[in-house]
Amino acid sequence: MIQRPRGTRDFGPAEMHKRRKAEQAMRDVCHRFGFGEVVTPTFEHSELFKLRSGPQVVEEMYVFRDKGDRELALRPEITASVIRYFVNDLSTAPRPLKFYYVGNCFRYENPQSGRYREFFQLGAELIGNKNPETDAEVIALAVNCIRAAGLENFVVRIGHIGILKSLVQSEVKDDAVVSDILRMLDKEDFDALGDMFDAKTLPRKLFDRITAIAEIKGEIDLLNNLEQSEVTDYVREIFSVLKIFGLEDCQLDLGIVRGLDYYTGMVFEIDAPNLGAEKQILGGGSYTLSELFGGEPVFSTGFAIGIDRVMLALEKERTPEPHQPLDAFVVPAKDDMRKYVLGIVARLRSQGLRVDVDLMRRTLSKSLKYASSANAKYAIIVGKEEMAKRSVTLRDMKSGEQEVVLADEVGSKIKGRVG
Amino acid sequence: MIQRPRGTRDFGPAEMHKRRKAEQAMRDVCHRFGFGEVVTPTFEHSELFKLRSGPQVVEEMYVFRDKGDRELALRPEITASVIRYFVNDLSTAPRPLKFYYVGNCFRYENPQSGRYREFFQLGAELIGNKNPETDAEVIALAVNCIRAAGLENFVVRIGHIGILKSLVQSEVKDDAVVSDILRMLDKEDFDALGDMFDAKTLPRKLFDRITAIAEIKGEIDLLNNLEQSEVTDYVREIFSVLKIFGLEDCQLDLGIVRGLDYYTGMVFEIDAPNLGAEKQILGGGSYTLSELFGGEPVFSTGFAIGIDRVMLALEKERTPEPHQPLDAFVVPAKDDMRKYVLGIVARLRSQGLRVDVDLMRRTLSKSLKYASSANAKYAIIVGKEEMAKRSVTLRDMKSGEQEVVLADEVGSKIKGRVG
Repeated sequence: MIQRPRGTRDFGPAEMHKRRKAEQAMRDVCHRFGFGEVVTPTFEHSELFKLRSGPQVVEEMYVFRDKGDRELALRPEITASVIRYFVNDLSTAPRPLKFYYVGNCFRYENPQSGRYREFFQLGAELIGNKNPETDAEVIALAVNCIRAAGLENFVVRIGHIGILKSLVQSEVKDDAVVSDILRMLDKEDFDALGDMFDAKTLPRKLFDRITAIAEIKGEIDLLNNLEQSEVTDYVREIFSVLKIFGLEDCQLDLGIVRGLDYYTGMVFEIDAPNLGAEKQILGGGSYTLSELFGGEPVFSTGFAIGIDRVMLALEKERTPEPHQPLDAFVVPAKDDMRKYVLGIVARLRSQGLRVDVDLMRRTLSKSLKYASSANAKYAIIVGKEEMAKRSVTLRDMKSGEQEVVLADEVGSKIKGRVG
Repeated sequence: MIQRPRGTRDFGPAEMHKRRKAEQAMRDVCHRFGFGEVVTPTFEHSELFKLRSGPQVVEEMYVFRDKGDRELALRPEITASVIRYFVNDLSTAPRPLKFYYVGNCFRYENPQSGRYREFFQLGAELIGNKNPETDAEVIALAVNCIRAAGLENFVVRIGHIGILKSLVQSEVKDDAVVSDILRMLDKEDFDALGDMFDAKTLPRKLFDRITAIAEIKGEIDLLNNLEQSEVTDYVREIFSVLKIFGLEDCQLDLGIVRGLDYYTGMVFEIDAPNLGAEKQILGGGSYTLSELFGGEPVFSTGFAIGIDRVMLALEKERTPEPHQPLDAFVVPAKDDMRKYVLGIVARLRSQGLRVDVDLMRRTLSKSLKYASSANAKYAIIVGKEEMAKRSVTLRDMKSGEQEVVLADEVGSKIKGRVG
């Protein structure tokens, strides 16, 4: 038997109903915020992702050559593609550009809870601008998406990479070492960071200072512990705009670094605490990336939501809903009525109802059993007598109550009840 | 500058708005017919597609090896995955299973109009049953999807592979030769077929008979030219059920063979004539595939719609619609009002309106120009005076008319007008 590839999934109708519902709610929020959808190719020249994330990203990528011997890769993320699209085709469009995307990404890693080789992201990029209200707009979009998906229990943490970066850069002049330090801060691997400071005989005072700052997490007022600067003013302004947007309880987290070099300012993450170790459901921030791909430098702010983790978090929060049920299942009592009932089915569907019909030529009782297993709200039974009177028997599958209704009226009757 | 890979596309918001609208309309039809969505992985073990389509499919596939040295392939179609999912996990579920999918597929071929290396399909599979009303149900679903997408000008052609197949099999005993003959009939390559008959000294009478049948295209009554058989009765029954479903003008086309061996009975195609040479927008039929993948033989009926071609056909039929417009663009007259207007923006969005705001700190006149280019229905302008009176100036971007409205009431005012 041929199996699905390791680390991938098949989704059935019940799961897809939940996923599309959450996705649609997030799309609606994006539209309300004036963001429009973009779709980019599932694979790109692998160079694009190497430029964004460094050559080490190749180890986790699905790479292949096409017949023109071009090296292609399944996308591990979508931001690089959106910015490539901007650089290729949209660099002269009126700014800002406000884009969102929903798509699948691929990473070759050991499958475990909440991590898959094919996974799904919804993200947004605001391209062409940088100021506190822009950053706040993007954070507000992210939070409203997560809320619209139905999640109640999550934590928004906001930081600014400039604080740690400028501190490190003031004392360390080698860019590669600066990157290494930031990467270790990102992983909160303070032991390794200490070892590196010793090995490279970097000032211990700097180590103490940056690890202390990386631990600043909580109320915005914790900023008072730092000297006032352009950056602290900027962060305060973001929080003040977020308050206007109705987001009162965002947290300050100066330890957020995010692994990649091209982040330039505000960085933020959202966690769903009930997910345990793999609790981060969103990452984002402001960055410049277009110049890496051959364009002029342009400021952008964006985020990506891990849809799989959001769905896991939703499951932990809620009792699962039933799968989108059928409004009615139509059953001919005998074979003579088979064709007659198909006309009723066609009419009900054209009225917008979800209607299925016995196609297996089952007996009445087996059909009713199937209707029940298919979670139909009503069964519509047509026997000889009903057919003669142009009527049907309408049976409530929950209560078992039955009534005889004119065939012409059964649609509006059901619509009136299922709303 | 890094370019998108050859044969792939980037879609911007205007195009995606049209695509999602058509897609959603088709999804709604699937739900009304009792079909539920499934999603399967973007890549599969390449063996799966070889089993379905023969080893020659490899030439058009994107194939790669993962680090476990498994040969994987980007899916060239989705039916094989759906049946693999059925064989793996759902073979004991109540039947029939009614599934639909929307997804991207990949084919390495020379890019040309209507053919891309990454393309999009919406398809459905009804698994576990075979009879005329099942076939008609699937055809009716397909036609209703195409109509719901907005296409008016299309032709439904329905045939049955059994007529040609049984004729050929009655005189040709070598299965490989039978397949070759059917493949040539599928391509309507009658010259090559004649040569092959000569080379293999097959009876010329058979050639004349099958090419004559392959040319039977038109009204269902053309069936009268054939001897009555189980198959002709079956096809008549399909057309009779389609009539009940309200599909009066389907055509008979006994020349439809479809290239693949596993089709067992009814086959159908839909064309959009205004697309010229690449006019086929849908192909489908009834088949058995599960036993190829290690399951028991199960009858299924399905189809796949080429979404890219449907979108091309829609474009040829209609004047393009404007991109989903913004309900309002909010502009502070001066920098002092920037934060104040953000509160108005947040409120309007929470009322469900699509609202954008100047984030570039542009002047009033530049902002109004941007609002116009962004296709906003209204501009909401807030100056000093308005702010003092908790009001806004509401400007109709089309007529240029302006009025002063209380800030609290501007949302319901706009909603009343944009519906």
